[in-house]
Amino acid sequence: MSRFGEEQDPLFRRINSSISFDWRLASFDIEQSKAHARALAKLDVLDEAELEAITNGLERVGVELDEGSFEFREEDEDIHMAIERRLTEMIGPLGGKLHTARSRNDQVATDLALLVRTHAARAVALLESLMETLVTQAQAHRDWPAPAYTHLQRAQPVYLGHHLLAYFWMFHRDARRFFHAAEATTDMPAGSGALAGLNWDVDREALAQDLGFERPYPNSLDAVSNRDFALDYLSAASICAMHLSRLGGEIVLWSSQEFGFCELPDSFASGSSIMPQKKNPDAAELLRGKAPRIAASLSSLLGTMHALPLAYSKDLQEDKEPLFDAIDNLELCLAAATGMLAGIRFNRERLSAAAEDELLAATDLADALVQQGVPFREAHGLVGGLVKAAVDSGRSLAELADSELNGIPEDARVAVRRAFEAGRTIESKVSAGGTASVRVAEQLDRAREALTALRK
Amino acid sequence: MSRFGEEQDPLFRRINSSISFDWRLASFDIEQSKAHARALAKLDVLDEAELEAITNGLERVGVELDEGSFEFREEDEDIHMAIERRLTEMIGPLGGKLHTARSRNDQVATDLALLVRTHAARAVALLESLMETLVTQAQAHRDWPAPAYTHLQRAQPVYLGHHLLAYFWMFHRDARRFFHAAEATTDMPAGSGALAGLNWDVDREALAQDLGFERPYPNSLDAVSNRDFALDYLSAASICAMHLSRLGGEIVLWSSQEFGFCELPDSFASGSSIMPQKKNPDAAELLRGKAPRIAASLSSLLGTMHALPLAYSKDLQEDKEPLFDAIDNLELCLAAATGMLAGIRFNRERLSAAAEDELLAATDLADALVQQGVPFREAHGLVGGLVKAAVDSGRSLAELADSELNGIPEDARVAVRRAFEAGRTIESKVSAGGTASVRVAEQLDRAREALTALRK
Amino acid sequence: MSRFGEEQDPLFRRINSSISFDWRLASFDIEQSKAHARALAKLDVLDEAELEAITNGLERVGVELDEGSFEFREEDEDIHMAIERRLTEMIGPLGGKLHTARSRNDQVATDLALLVRTHAARAVALLESLMETLVTQAQAHRDWPAPAYTHLQRAQPVYLGHHLLAYFWMFHRDARRFFHAAEATTDMPAGSGALAGLNWDVDREALAQDLGFERPYPNSLDAVSNRDFALDYLSAASICAMHLSRLGGEIVLWSSQEFGFCELPDSFASGSSIMPQKKNPDAAELLRGKAPRIAASLSSLLGTMHALPLAYSKDLQEDKEPLFDAIDNLELCLAAATGMLAGIRFNRERLSAAAEDELLAATDLADALVQQGVPFREAHGLVGGLVKAAVDSGRSLAELADSELNGIPEDARVAVRRAFEAGRTIESKVSAGGTASVRVAEQLDRAREALTALRK
Amino acid sequence: MSRFGEEQDPLFRRINSSISFDWRLASFDIEQSKAHARALAKLDVLDEAELEAITNGLERVGVELDEGSFEFREEDEDIHMAIERRLTEMIGPLGGKLHTARSRNDQVATDLALLVRTHAARAVALLESLMETLVTQAQAHRDWPAPAYTHLQRAQPVYLGHHLLAYFWMFHRDARRFFHAAEATTDMPAGSGALAGLNWDVDREALAQDLGFERPYPNSLDAVSNRDFALDYLSAASICAMHLSRLGGEIVLWSSQEFGFCELPDSFASGSSIMPQKKNPDAAELLRGKAPRIAASLSSLLGTMHALPLAYSKDLQEDKEPLFDAIDNLELCLAAATGMLAGIRFNRERLSAAAEDELLAATDLADALVQQGVPFREAHGLVGGLVKAAVDSGRSLAELADSELNGIPEDARVAVRRAFEAGRTIESKVSAGGTASVRVAEQLDRAREALTALRK
Repeated sequence: MSRFGEEQDPLFRRINSSISFDWRLASFDIEQSKAHARALAKLDVLDEAELEAITNGLERVGVELDEGSFEFREEDEDIHMAIERRLTEMIGPLGGKLHTARSRNDQVATDLALLVRTHAARAVALLESLMETLVTQAQAHRDWPAPAYTHLQRAQPVYLGHHLLAYFWMFHRDARRFFHAAEATTDMPAGSGALAGLNWDVDREALAQDLGFERPYPNSLDAVSNRDFALDYLSAASICAMHLSRLGGEIVLWSSQEFGFCELPDSFASGSSIMPQKKNPDAAELLRGKAPRIAASLSSLLGTMHALPLAYSKDLQEDKEPLFDAIDNLELCLAAATGMLAGIRFNRERLSAAAEDELLAATDLADALVQQGVPFREAHGLVGGLVKAAVDSGRSLAELADSELNGIPEDARVAVRRAFEAGRTIESKVSAGGTASVRVAEQLDRAREALTALRK
Repeated sequence: MSRFGEEQDPLFRRINSSISFDWRLASFDIEQSKAHARALAKLDVLDEAELEAITNGLERVGVELDEGSFEFREEDEDIHMAIERRLTEMIGPLGGKLHTARSRNDQVATDLALLVRTHAARAVALLESLMETLVTQAQAHRDWPAPAYTHLQRAQPVYLGHHLLAYFWMFHRDARRFFHAAEATTDMPAGSGALAGLNWDVDREALAQDLGFERPYPNSLDAVSNRDFALDYLSAASICAMHLSRLGGEIVLWSSQEFGFCELPDSFASGSSIMPQKKNPDAAELLRGKAPRIAASLSSLLGTMHALPLAYSKDLQEDKEPLFDAIDNLELCLAAATGMLAGIRFNRERLSAAAEDELLAATDLADALVQQGVPFREAHGLVGGLVKAAVDSGRSLAELADSELNGIPEDARVAVRRAFEAGRTIESKVSAGGTASVRVAEQLDRAREALTALRK
Repeated sequence: MSRFGEEQDPLFRRINSSISFDWRLASFDIEQSKAHARALAKLDVLDEAELEAITNGLERVGVELDEGSFEFREEDEDIHMAIERRLTEMIGPLGGKLHTARSRNDQVATDLALLVRTHAARAVALLESLMETLVTQAQAHRDWPAPAYTHLQRAQPVYLGHHLLAYFWMFHRDARRFFHAAEATTDMPAGSGALAGLNWDVDREALAQDLGFERPYPNSLDAVSNRDFALDYLSAASICAMHLSRLGGEIVLWSSQEFGFCELPDSFASGSSIMPQKKNPDAAELLRGKAPRIAASLSSLLGTMHALPLAYSKDLQEDKEPLFDAIDNLELCLAAATGMLAGIRFNRERLSAAAEDELLAATDLADALVQQGVPFREAHGLVGGLVKAAVDSGRSLAELADSELNGIPEDARVAVRRAFEAGRTIESKVSAGGTASVRVAEQLDRAREALTALRK
Repeated sequence: MSRFGEEQDPLFRRINSSISFDWRLASFDIEQSKAHARALAKLDVLDEAELEAITNGLERVGVELDEGSFEFREEDEDIHMAIERRLTEMIGPLGGKLHTARSRNDQVATDLALLVRTHAARAVALLESLMETLVTQAQAHRDWPAPAYTHLQRAQPVYLGHHLLAYFWMFHRDARRFFHAAEATTDMPAGSGALAGLNWDVDREALAQDLGFERPYPNSLDAVSNRDFALDYLSAASICAMHLSRLGGEIVLWSSQEFGFCELPDSFASGSSIMPQKKNPDAAELLRGKAPRIAASLSSLLGTMHALPLAYSKDLQEDKEPLFDAIDNLELCLAAATGMLAGIRFNRERLSAAAEDELLAATDLADALVQQGVPFREAHGLVGGLVKAAVDSGRSLAELADSELNGIPEDARVAVRRAFEAGRTIESKVSAGGTASVRVAEQLDRAREALTALRK
């Protein structure tokens, strides 16, 4: 008998119930409940036989959930109630003992921490595959000249492998972020009760170890109020999704007829319902298009937490759907990006042609002048004038007559002419982290080491 | 035979497919297809018998979808394909003719506009019920004194009906916003083809009329690229949800033991799994907690549209889930708010006691001085001094001795004493829109008129 | 003398003070104060001489503010205090009377409404110039073939004028949104006092008329709590900025060497500090890059309003900076877009060459088959096969031998061959809103009419 | 002479210029330039005398900037140009040599990394002061009973010190996040040139050491494209601001007359312009109200980075203002929170009275029954019935007659009666992290240790 005299309004049930989405916590809830039962046994709340009955019961519930034979009922407000209800059907009133020395508040926080820990690890694993694929492709294209852009204007030639490795390092940083998100789940909420702690001196250290946590939360109020770990996951996911959006955006661009730098594998592209000639880079577009949605999940949870008084408020029910949505979409995007990149074909001719645009050598021209003693800003101005002369007359820089090299000191003209030699520009970028072959080779080694270190 | 040699990767199918959520467009898609078939008949693309076969077929598909007997297949990439596939199974190759003179690009934009129009109207209807309930409650509590707050400090007494009507006007503005969102769907995308228009001179004016639009889009590229109407809905929903969050937040506050101003009906409250004495205002908390999620849907779609080149990009597939999620949550919140407010009980004694806090009369004190000729800022300072004297000595203002009314001009002291008389403050707020009884009565009339006008 | 015994902490002053940004309300505050003084005179709170003294004083303060000679003081917490302080310095204690019958709560809400109204009108005016420029450019390029894209793949040719007009309609919708934002400021907060109304029966209708409002708020609590009009402005600005980001993004794309479709005027482009050959479309990039910031202002204010109890809370101070930032950036972007578009040069050859890509005719091929009686889906498949054959063998569709037109019905082959004729595709899009010349001409007329209607 | 024939449009200059905000990078830019000059000297680009001249010049520019005597010019597009321009004015053409072997792209990225590193450290220092204050207050109030809430309903009593420590741990996590943000700046962009590396083999390891970085970026493209470190700072700031909003929100709540649990120091509160009795918790409201703005800065930058192609795009100019705004507001909030908490006064009587609400013991009642062998769910139901009986009849639980303890097993009634004893509930929460005195003492020790560890 509850203190309530009236039935719940169906509308209230709908807005209040979380079972339609929190079933995703089921496996973590069962794992936690089994550990909790072991802790209750240590406290002599359960005897050996009871522990075994509950453990077996929970495992059978788990099987039903896995197999899809679990029947949800209208009164199952959330997954925790549903599991306990089913357990009690199976093993009788003993099932009710399981809720001793815990509250839904610490229970749900613990489930959620387990889930975030699992998916942070999954994100790292998916990132590793993606990075592996990038290393493979960078190795294969380590000496393919490609144009690099600033302001989407051709700026300087680089090797395609160098360009691909730029993404490697973005995803490497993302992996570190997911490690931090996983670290944010090292504290165990269980044992905090509703908010103040428990009347039982549960061995929380042991329970934490049992569930793979490092330690219990030092403060019970914080334990049930905190969702930082979900925000840490969402921050990592938002930044990672932004990186994927840059990758996706570039592939869309490069797949256009105008760029023509790459072609997606047929297995990652689609046709048009009305234009039969089309081959659309849908997967790349979705990498781009899904990023704002993941960032919105972060906004959503930050917004829900805003100004929320301690300890538990029902608002926290809104932590799950944005998180689940972000997890699903991020994992799908990471896997799709890997598959797409593994099968992508680059077009060497188109890339080379664009990279050989001699205007790209203009910076080197300026540098050549500097090395002859012309102050940089002055050199910059001189070369700007040459470029204007060439562009205005529809000629290349190399076609300018000596008489037009006005302002260039006599003794610098040889250096200037040499700056136009093919391939010279790209190999001249010799500083550490630059695109010269030797530096790209060095970088590939470092990327492989970083990947190995990650896997330890 | 398509131009593609390879099978689609299962991952690609997962990321590319929208059938798991765009089934929600089904009824709009069938409605549109029936009108499209009629337009094709006018163009003599279909003869009468074909039109009838297609119409009947579409209706049967609709019945299957409604009844839940429609079997989705793995290759049904989206709802449009699924419906056409099933139609063709039913009526043979004729089904393929239906896609003449249209593209998925204009088709999906049209479906979505129909959906937004429908749900904008539903939001208005739900808002009307909520406003009706507010008027009823405001009428019932039109003369209950209640404290109003600034900075969550008791500031001035008002009638509870006045406070409730403040929400009425918020929701009234929301209704106008949803009208604007509906107006944003008056143009019909259908007939724009993939992006450039059609090879057939379909009578788009007639088709628009047939589908309840006011006119066709004047520009085919814009028609397939535009999702403004969804953003207009989401803006309206975000602001409305913010209003609901203020209402929800106040009810949570007022339901606390400390305030004790109201109690939710049992049918809209829940108990605690561990604390049997609790009666939790869950529904109100969810009104509060869901608002950031709806605002996040707006961010999500704005983000997806960001810098997207014309015309259609696959990114636009990401328009649906945030929109659907916002629709579902907003409609649920509006209905729950109405149910909750219909059954809420206010506590007259607690409200009155708080409203009678004589410090609330301090402003009137200052006003009384002003009316005696003291400049406002000076009056403000004098009353501040009295308050400090009272608070410091733990007395009420009325308990201050005449000798302590230092600084108050002799001839103003009578007015000052009168300012403390019970109920005087609340009835003194006589300006239009103020809380004096006569003004609240006026306002109730205006609210009823506004509601009537809305329903026309 | 105030009730406070201690000095304010310097940190508190810094966080509490708004003078560093709310000086932007100054002209609106003076306008309001002058009208308020007139209202006080009607109530006989001020006599004629006092009214004149205050009015003159306020005007002199306004001049100081305009000229930059106004000296702000450390204790000027906000612009309202600063103006009143200065007024009192100028005209003596009479200045203190001005705050009779009002509160900073209704005062600031009124200032802000006046500001939003002004800037909504300014946005409309800026949009009109932009639309005018688009019409001019569309007229000038009404018959320049250009490729249109889906998935950034060339899809179908259109006229460049048609493409430019797509933006016209976006901005036309934006203008309507700013009208709605302006309409959201038709209610006047002034006269609502702190929250409950005033002890004076000010003639609020007259005051509203005096200040250009339509009517007073019907509810004093709502009047001081409401910031919807700022949100309406920010929603309109966010959607408008998104449109600008699409325009900017396309110009960046089209300015690349690979597309080569357009070139910004030198007056709207910049060079590179290190690469002298570069001409960067900075202005277009900033149209793109600033949109998320404007959308973030909307998120910010929605977040600040979240769950805020009635009536005034200090949190509302956070309404101003995001709003001002959005206003400044939007107005700058609109003006820059207009200037940039007025001077942009399109490259007819590059556009034509891309538009003539015969694969773009594939849809028409399918349509031709349909018009010969082949069901659409079948026609689509047949053409897909032809495209694959052509692409695989590096030939154009026209180069396919008759023997390769396998599957195409004999009597349809003439139609198929005709579908390749130059220019045929673009002129075949005859449906209303399509890209055929006649339709573009029609659309230009409608655009001009729409612009004229807007200006009324 | 540049390649541009036309003057820049004034509008373009306004949208393109960043000098109005990026002057904040000045000290970092000078620091970097001095190190860069040393690196150029090692490369023999500068001789000793030149190095000295440049170094002295830069220091004099720095002094002018610090003293406010630096005169900005209209043509100073950004701070980098302004400093170099002034340097050249001071030391002649030699100033132009400084830009050898670098680009604004790597220069600005390096400045920004230096700035983020500095402010991440400042955030940690500010957090330490705040945590220190929390420990002091928690120690002082370690044995003050206070009510804790779920759903803003009184739930269980805790010690006030326990409640305050919950915030300690939130801020402790924030400090870790700022460490991560600082770690995200360990790579040095300088030496990456425009994007491809440099023609000079600068000793980047040495330069990195000189500037306090751990190592150069391994990839030059990534180095100039990456703003992750700013996003990491903004993520940390958003979560930290959310914590501050919870703290601020609770203080606002607790400062209300209804709660009456605390009072802000006068130095952190303000009065009302119209209501002299008010003491408003403005600082706490602003902690709450500013959080969404900081989260919006994160959204803004994530949005700007969305789908941005490598390497540098002008959009990246939009990284600064949201970052600076977040830094300023966060640092101000942290300092204000510390000042406010240091002077806050709690009201022991009000807190105690609320904490002694015997309904708060209901959970313990249920626990007492469980310890007598009643299954938890059954115990929960029994206690719920008792609560309903008590609430319905307006009595306390202790006032229920034995005859009303229906359903309670005979042998459990003693335990039930004992559960009501004063203070028993709070001390019964003995699990690790719970609110029992011994646990709070333990927790205070751990907090002090954590703070010490942080400071190392």
